[in-house]
Amino acid sequence: MSGNTLGRLFRLTTYGESHGAGLGGVIDGCPAGIALDEAVIQRELDLRRPGGNSASTTRQEPDRVRLLSGVFEGVTTGTPIAFHVENVDQRSRDYGEIARLYRPGHADFTYDAKFGVRDYRGGGRASGRETLSRVAGGAIAQALLARHGIAVRAFTVELGGVPADLVDVAGAQLRPFFSPDPDVVEAWEDMVRTVKGEGDTLGGIVQVEATGVPAGLGEPVFDKLDAVLAYALMSVGAVKGVEVGAGFEAARMHGSDNNDPIVPSGFFTNHAGGILGGISNGETIVLRAAVKPIPSIAQEQITIDRDGKPSALFIAGRHDISAIPRIVPVLKAMTALVLADMLLMQRRMATPQP
Amino acid sequence: MSGNTLGRLFRLTTYGESHGAGLGGVIDGCPAGIALDEAVIQRELDLRRPGGNSASTTRQEPDRVRLLSGVFEGVTTGTPIAFHVENVDQRSRDYGEIARLYRPGHADFTYDAKFGVRDYRGGGRASGRETLSRVAGGAIAQALLARHGIAVRAFTVELGGVPADLVDVAGAQLRPFFSPDPDVVEAWEDMVRTVKGEGDTLGGIVQVEATGVPAGLGEPVFDKLDAVLAYALMSVGAVKGVEVGAGFEAARMHGSDNNDPIVPSGFFTNHAGGILGGISNGETIVLRAAVKPIPSIAQEQITIDRDGKPSALFIAGRHDISAIPRIVPVLKAMTALVLADMLLMQRRMATPQP
Amino acid sequence: MSGNTLGRLFRLTTYGESHGAGLGGVIDGCPAGIALDEAVIQRELDLRRPGGNSASTTRQEPDRVRLLSGVFEGVTTGTPIAFHVENVDQRSRDYGEIARLYRPGHADFTYDAKFGVRDYRGGGRASGRETLSRVAGGAIAQALLARHGIAVRAFTVELGGVPADLVDVAGAQLRPFFSPDPDVVEAWEDMVRTVKGEGDTLGGIVQVEATGVPAGLGEPVFDKLDAVLAYALMSVGAVKGVEVGAGFEAARMHGSDNNDPIVPSGFFTNHAGGILGGISNGETIVLRAAVKPIPSIAQEQITIDRDGKPSALFIAGRHDISAIPRIVPVLKAMTALVLADMLLMQRRMATPQP
Amino acid sequence: MSGNTLGRLFRLTTYGESHGAGLGGVIDGCPAGIALDEAVIQRELDLRRPGGNSASTTRQEPDRVRLLSGVFEGVTTGTPIAFHVENVDQRSRDYGEIARLYRPGHADFTYDAKFGVRDYRGGGRASGRETLSRVAGGAIAQALLARHGIAVRAFTVELGGVPADLVDVAGAQLRPFFSPDPDVVEAWEDMVRTVKGEGDTLGGIVQVEATGVPAGLGEPVFDKLDAVLAYALMSVGAVKGVEVGAGFEAARMHGSDNNDPIVPSGFFTNHAGGILGGISNGETIVLRAAVKPIPSIAQEQITIDRDGKPSALFIAGRHDISAIPRIVPVLKAMTALVLADMLLMQRRMATPQP
Repeated sequence: MSGNTLGRLFRLTTYGESHGAGLGGVIDGCPAGIALDEAVIQRELDLRRPGGNSASTTRQEPDRVRLLSGVFEGVTTGTPIAFHVENVDQRSRDYGEIARLYRPGHADFTYDAKFGVRDYRGGGRASGRETLSRVAGGAIAQALLARHGIAVRAFTVELGGVPADLVDVAGAQLRPFFSPDPDVVEAWEDMVRTVKGEGDTLGGIVQVEATGVPAGLGEPVFDKLDAVLAYALMSVGAVKGVEVGAGFEAARMHGSDNNDPIVPSGFFTNHAGGILGGISNGETIVLRAAVKPIPSIAQEQITIDRDGKPSALFIAGRHDISAIPRIVPVLKAMTALVLADMLLMQRRMATPQP
Repeated sequence: MSGNTLGRLFRLTTYGESHGAGLGGVIDGCPAGIALDEAVIQRELDLRRPGGNSASTTRQEPDRVRLLSGVFEGVTTGTPIAFHVENVDQRSRDYGEIARLYRPGHADFTYDAKFGVRDYRGGGRASGRETLSRVAGGAIAQALLARHGIAVRAFTVELGGVPADLVDVAGAQLRPFFSPDPDVVEAWEDMVRTVKGEGDTLGGIVQVEATGVPAGLGEPVFDKLDAVLAYALMSVGAVKGVEVGAGFEAARMHGSDNNDPIVPSGFFTNHAGGILGGISNGETIVLRAAVKPIPSIAQEQITIDRDGKPSALFIAGRHDISAIPRIVPVLKAMTALVLADMLLMQRRMATPQP
Repeated sequence: MSGNTLGRLFRLTTYGESHGAGLGGVIDGCPAGIALDEAVIQRELDLRRPGGNSASTTRQEPDRVRLLSGVFEGVTTGTPIAFHVENVDQRSRDYGEIARLYRPGHADFTYDAKFGVRDYRGGGRASGRETLSRVAGGAIAQALLARHGIAVRAFTVELGGVPADLVDVAGAQLRPFFSPDPDVVEAWEDMVRTVKGEGDTLGGIVQVEATGVPAGLGEPVFDKLDAVLAYALMSVGAVKGVEVGAGFEAARMHGSDNNDPIVPSGFFTNHAGGILGGISNGETIVLRAAVKPIPSIAQEQITIDRDGKPSALFIAGRHDISAIPRIVPVLKAMTALVLADMLLMQRRMATPQP
Repeated sequence: MSGNTLGRLFRLTTYGESHGAGLGGVIDGCPAGIALDEAVIQRELDLRRPGGNSASTTRQEPDRVRLLSGVFEGVTTGTPIAFHVENVDQRSRDYGEIARLYRPGHADFTYDAKFGVRDYRGGGRASGRETLSRVAGGAIAQALLARHGIAVRAFTVELGGVPADLVDVAGAQLRPFFSPDPDVVEAWEDMVRTVKGEGDTLGGIVQVEATGVPAGLGEPVFDKLDAVLAYALMSVGAVKGVEVGAGFEAARMHGSDNNDPIVPSGFFTNHAGGILGGISNGETIVLRAAVKPIPSIAQEQITIDRDGKPSALFIAGRHDISAIPRIVPVLKAMTALVLADMLLMQRRMATPQP
């Protein structure tokens, strides 16, 4: 496959399997002169570490990132920036059933269908661990965006069907589940405990916002800003839906309600989510992603083995109850990667002066 | 901008403005030996013509397509297939206010912000007329897919908040609004009349399905099948949300419900919408797109002019009440284009024999 | 095939066969605000018309270009610029032997090997007529480059082994064979007559130069300026070799001779041809392309037919004696297309200010 | 810059600086099921190690490659194959003059012009050490090609103006300078000694051949096989010219001599170098690259410093006398990478059966 590169001018290429030697990536196209070191990347990586709250497992994953190129004397040089995270725990195990049986909701069946061979250890390339490289790349994108006054944030707006109020978006990053609502946290924690006791799992909805985005980003008619963002968010495992601004709700509104009146200071409302005709309009970019429940449940499931024979499967081991909150920094990273790319795309379009 | 090409191996590049000389495109990468003529393309174009039912205007747009290259003696030759649709009515008009005022919900403001100049006649490149090229390209994609037993269909599952039952998907193509539900048509027609009388417009939800898709299509980790499909659908003007399979509803399900059990004949349920880990699993691909209400309403609106001064705007002329049903064949075309591309991508992956 | 697009940000996609409906292309990525009309393109197209001198045939090819999109009120709008040249003489003929026999030195054999079907009329897509689209695209590139003070010129430095002196490069465009040397023209014309009398054909060497190119263009390590230029020139049919600066002669020099000393005003010599480490250094870009003799000779040749049976072939009709001079504006166009692309690539790299 | 990826379907992305943490790359798009381990790559890397003969320095560069992903149980899995070579000697040194002065013939000046900052240690990204990643990637390409019966070989046909006879191409890989001519080796070694004594350096010409290439590879009209090969070879530092088959000599031949007669078993001669119309014709692919003399000479040179002030420069330290022979396996690798890509491109073109 050759679908492991994201972006046109600010490009992230990733590699790595869950239980291989390690995971990493290469950013090609980052302009020179951006301050960058391993700490900048590590900070974002730490946000997706498990154990931060009750929906994640307590497994240890230090995930120390190492910069291999592209930075000299503390700034980017314009050459490719490679980073690598070593897999520390690669001891060989008995993968018995996992190697033979297809886990429902996982990519086991489809990887075999596509490639004929499959690194079944911990999900291989299809593991959630793959998102490490996305978050690291996103950290570099955010370093570039910050130079242009653009900031990206992400938070959980719904877990297991229970919505949060957006009362404190700024504080979400430090709160369990990246919740923008202090009052919903306890209800979510209770729900996680209950569902865990049932051997079951939960999904939810994450909102991503980008502020400071200048009007003009996006490359219609295909590479519209919302189209490329939808691609980027949907490329994250577990995401089953993406919407912009009013999203699916817009389908139920009348034009007179959905249209955002234009005033000298900008737009009076933001049903458009900051994007018109596929181009940013200067308002906050607003996206939401639907996250399915983790497929690794602690219940017996019906499946088949590699030979097509019916089998019962019980997945042992500790697993997250929900991709939330760990997926939150991943979705933030994806948004940042797209915006960095589109920013460079737009810069090259400046009308030359005669 | 250079975002007017879609696809990696089966590539569509489009051009054209609403009131320029014409619109068209080039398909590069279509394998040789596919039967193709203008009638095959015209048939699809005719599906998006207005006047077919009460939600569309009665303007005349013959939209005759002409094949310019890539076909010899009735079959494709493997060289680029160019097609062109001449704009027949290019008489010059007074675009007065449209040239000066930014229409809310349209791309007028953002095109100016991006490019500094703008072909304001009928929306220029941002007109819905641009989708002509998508439908023509999609017709060629469907000719290729048909050779592989893959078929794509699209239909309206909700209009103005009123849902349809999926009682006759096969018959939807011949029904007003591409409705899969004979019984909802009258209610929809009534609603369209009412809303039209109020000078307002409607949105809705379109479902696209692809049958016969073999397991194995999709290029993780970024170019997952669902990610590229989300990009393609979201790139259509008016689409504000995309979901796959259970979509946003999956965010409210437990893992034990959402997981599709695997049985020897395939998957017992299809919450995944035919895609696991970004790769097709052999089941029907199921997508839904949220379509916002048409922004051209027959009511006075608040906006600014090119100099930033507040203005009142009233858009005259006949306009569609909803992008539905005309957007339905467009979304079908986009899905076909992505599947054709992914089919060629997968074909090159066949493990070579020693 | 999907190799009919050139460039990353300033992209040319072409289509068309020698005896099909017409030829054309789409430029995607041209910045807005560049003055452009059909006359700008037509001027370049006329340079490659036959009949201008004794090495070309006297066939009539009016080749009127038509702009279809992307230009409004005399300037580019940033949207795709489509252009089309109608094939006026499409009357059906008897292609008898050409359809059945593979012409030596032509692409008949390889197109059949690749695609299984082939538009054999006049060489189809492999005809020299395909370069029309390159020249039209190059004219648009030159309009952009001119805004940045970059000019491209091309001229013949050798024909049939007889070299020209570079005594009047500026005057070459108006001289037979685009010769930079008034004194060699007569010898070349004599040679062409003689060779024509023998039913044979000639090759030669073309030099392309670009002035005003700022230092900094080129994207190492793969997309070096010289690498992409070599690709672009070699992609023109009949070109069998490309060199930069001292080129093959550099292989015979010592380092102390080949190195260009650096002085405050630039480089003291230009063996590098204006490119160091794949990046322009501010000096004139100097390229040379080796052009093989036209394969359509008026002599009996040995070949096979589609079934692999040995056959004798005699190609009737009027043909050029050499791809020179008609290939000269094509090579100029290719150089301009690459420089326009690299200019946009470099612009997006400007270090953002903190 | 974002020019560090080569290929469309079989893609190599590289990173790394001469004196940074290390160099490496990612191959994305290699089909699953190809036998691969570190030894396969190491074997090719060892071919470019210095010290093998008198034209190279005696510096120690162990260059041990490590595979990081994409291989499981000894075969490729279809996921990205990452490899890394650690730079063992990264001790900090005094780079005094190199940091300040622009070395003639090197990329110091142009990297500063492009990026504003520059990793000057050992040439940074512009060092010949960068080719490590190319050779490693090429080894993987060759593993794929071998499955299809395609082999690539490279050898030196001229050094310092002294040509070799192609008397033993098969034995070249084991001979000093990768010479196909046992008798020229002594003359070349004498010349190297003499030139070294003068503090000077040498260039030469390398020939690359690919056998077993099926007819049909190449993607006209731009991505012709010869065009992409020219790009790939020219992208290697020190290469100033590329030719295919008869190359520049073809410019001096008559059509009747240059045309390769077609016979039932193939082509009677191979002036075309195995490529017609940009598509392989089944004959041996024949390329030649002109390699300039190493610019690091042991003589005083005229240059400027970063502030534009004239300076005298003397480059100390041990350096190669010629890029030959170390560049030979690099050019072989580049050819293999292009062929692997084109092979996958062609495979997806197979006409689907009705």
